[in-house]
Amino acid sequence: MIVPFDKLKATAKKAFLNLGLSEEQAETCAHIHASSSADGVESHGMNRIPRFAEYVGKGWVNVNGRPELIRAKGAAENYDGHLGIGITNALFCAERAMKLAEVHGIGLVALKNTTHWMRGGTYAWKIAESGYIGISWINTESCMPMWGSDEKSVGNNPFCIAIPREDGQIVVDMAMSQYAYGKLGVYRLAGKKLPYPGGFDKDGKLTDDPGAIEDSMRILPTGYWKGSSLAIALDLAAAAISNGLCGSDMDANNNGSCTGCSQIFIAIDPYMFGEKSDIQSMLNRRVAIADSAHPIDPKHPVKCPGESTISRRKKSLSEGVNVDDSIWEQVCALADGKTLSGRIE
Amino acid sequence: MIVPFDKLKATAKKAFLNLGLSEEQAETCAHIHASSSADGVESHGMNRIPRFAEYVGKGWVNVNGRPELIRAKGAAENYDGHLGIGITNALFCAERAMKLAEVHGIGLVALKNTTHWMRGGTYAWKIAESGYIGISWINTESCMPMWGSDEKSVGNNPFCIAIPREDGQIVVDMAMSQYAYGKLGVYRLAGKKLPYPGGFDKDGKLTDDPGAIEDSMRILPTGYWKGSSLAIALDLAAAAISNGLCGSDMDANNNGSCTGCSQIFIAIDPYMFGEKSDIQSMLNRRVAIADSAHPIDPKHPVKCPGESTISRRKKSLSEGVNVDDSIWEQVCALADGKTLSGRIE
Repeated sequence: MIVPFDKLKATAKKAFLNLGLSEEQAETCAHIHASSSADGVESHGMNRIPRFAEYVGKGWVNVNGRPELIRAKGAAENYDGHLGIGITNALFCAERAMKLAEVHGIGLVALKNTTHWMRGGTYAWKIAESGYIGISWINTESCMPMWGSDEKSVGNNPFCIAIPREDGQIVVDMAMSQYAYGKLGVYRLAGKKLPYPGGFDKDGKLTDDPGAIEDSMRILPTGYWKGSSLAIALDLAAAAISNGLCGSDMDANNNGSCTGCSQIFIAIDPYMFGEKSDIQSMLNRRVAIADSAHPIDPKHPVKCPGESTISRRKKSLSEGVNVDDSIWEQVCALADGKTLSGRIE
Repeated sequence: MIVPFDKLKATAKKAFLNLGLSEEQAETCAHIHASSSADGVESHGMNRIPRFAEYVGKGWVNVNGRPELIRAKGAAENYDGHLGIGITNALFCAERAMKLAEVHGIGLVALKNTTHWMRGGTYAWKIAESGYIGISWINTESCMPMWGSDEKSVGNNPFCIAIPREDGQIVVDMAMSQYAYGKLGVYRLAGKKLPYPGGFDKDGKLTDDPGAIEDSMRILPTGYWKGSSLAIALDLAAAAISNGLCGSDMDANNNGSCTGCSQIFIAIDPYMFGEKSDIQSMLNRRVAIADSAHPIDPKHPVKCPGESTISRRKKSLSEGVNVDDSIWEQVCALADGKTLSGRIE
């Protein structure tokens, strides 16, 4: 169904207040979850609120946890997230990275012991909207086979990079799997094949049949061996820099998705070596040339990453946000102070 | 043919001296080109020496160019490479990034107006071998269609990340195309299909026929839209941070591969927030678990990125390095003070 953004956010906020979040936390989380859905990332927007409620109930997310500064060195800081709310922990660290970049040109914040940050791109978008180049990544529990293996052995460890462009931020938010499990379900329920092969079936054949991949649990790393290699490297780097858990530590704890994970936030001042007007003009020139590349299908012009999201956001804000009926029902129930029973989506 | 490493390096060094490089430059470049071949990256090792000679001859590489500090801010520095030798410019900047990281925890060096750095992974390997986490990338001229386009419109902009592990560095060195053009040629000449689709044929069909992709020039971004998005973002970020050329500026100049390009070098102190012994033990634990993931084929155990390179290096150093016959002939000719005529490989 379609729900106006303000109603979506207000309902989510009530749900979060009922889960024990403070006024400020609830306001922030409601805004981020509603905004992710408005941007078209429903899987990590409103859809995640029931699971967040479940995690709070199980004690996997501690709504009283706050990021604590553990150590600092020059342009870098290390925080313990105390299993607090993933969104507010990560936003805090993104802000700190920008403060450090303001002084040092580049700033790095390494957050350990935090929880699911929901839509990965949130923080790179925020950094770009604040005028900095943002790079961030996370390690997750294992959900994807390493290249050459047939069992899940590495996280899909999303990597994000964002460039502040006043005419529209350029943002990449990419998991290391070709498709998320959520996406496989969407195609299967619609009776459709995937646009491109997304994993292996039980016989080890590359397939575009979403159900066969859900059965085998052998989702495909993006770019085959490349996504697998980058995924394990991002895991190791996040755990090393933050002095936090690596993916296999999370597997051993088995406390749900991303509980106790490590996250890295890097902000870079894009104007420290060039004039802002020159840099912005270069960005606009490059994006315009990329977008004018000859399209395969004239009805689908080439777009740089982030541009379609901005169009989608505008549409959602004026016409309402698409929300899955069952999710909306659950969020409304939480807003009414009810607890969810049965399987959490 | 197989050539002992020392002979390979000595011959390359003579060739570089004949091209006008200083003793120190020739020593460094010979070591890097020979080492890349020893590591199995022949395409960007010995194979590139004839093209380097061509670029020096055309004035696209200025052997007298040296990196010049343009501006600095805190943990970040900006250099103009003055179209000097790509390898020595990049090594200098990687060293500077580590010096900055020593003081500030993280260091960033943005290099503009430089030339082809040959094997991208060289600098991340170097940073990891020196005990830092390394991240580096470059923008190149357009050689790959953006996703949704059928004409080359973005570079394959290699991205590298390396983690220092005393039991073997973990290094990812990935171009944003699924296969390099050089690799397509290797498969075509061997009469083989690619292991996985690597581009589109002239009719727009995804294909594993290397010759069909060479004809269409529609190489595939790794992970389809993902590699395309990351490629344009890396281009914009490199040009913005370094205040240098973006990919389309290089296209307009049309001075060969990577001439005038922008490069980013980031070094991070991996032990600033944790004890070195704890971090190394976590890395070893995680890598061991990844490597023990159940293999599809027991003869091909899972390996983390970099591990196979180290095995290959050991073998090359003890048994000799594989070099293409024609390339070896050309490098020997350059070492004898001859000039190359005809088509440069």
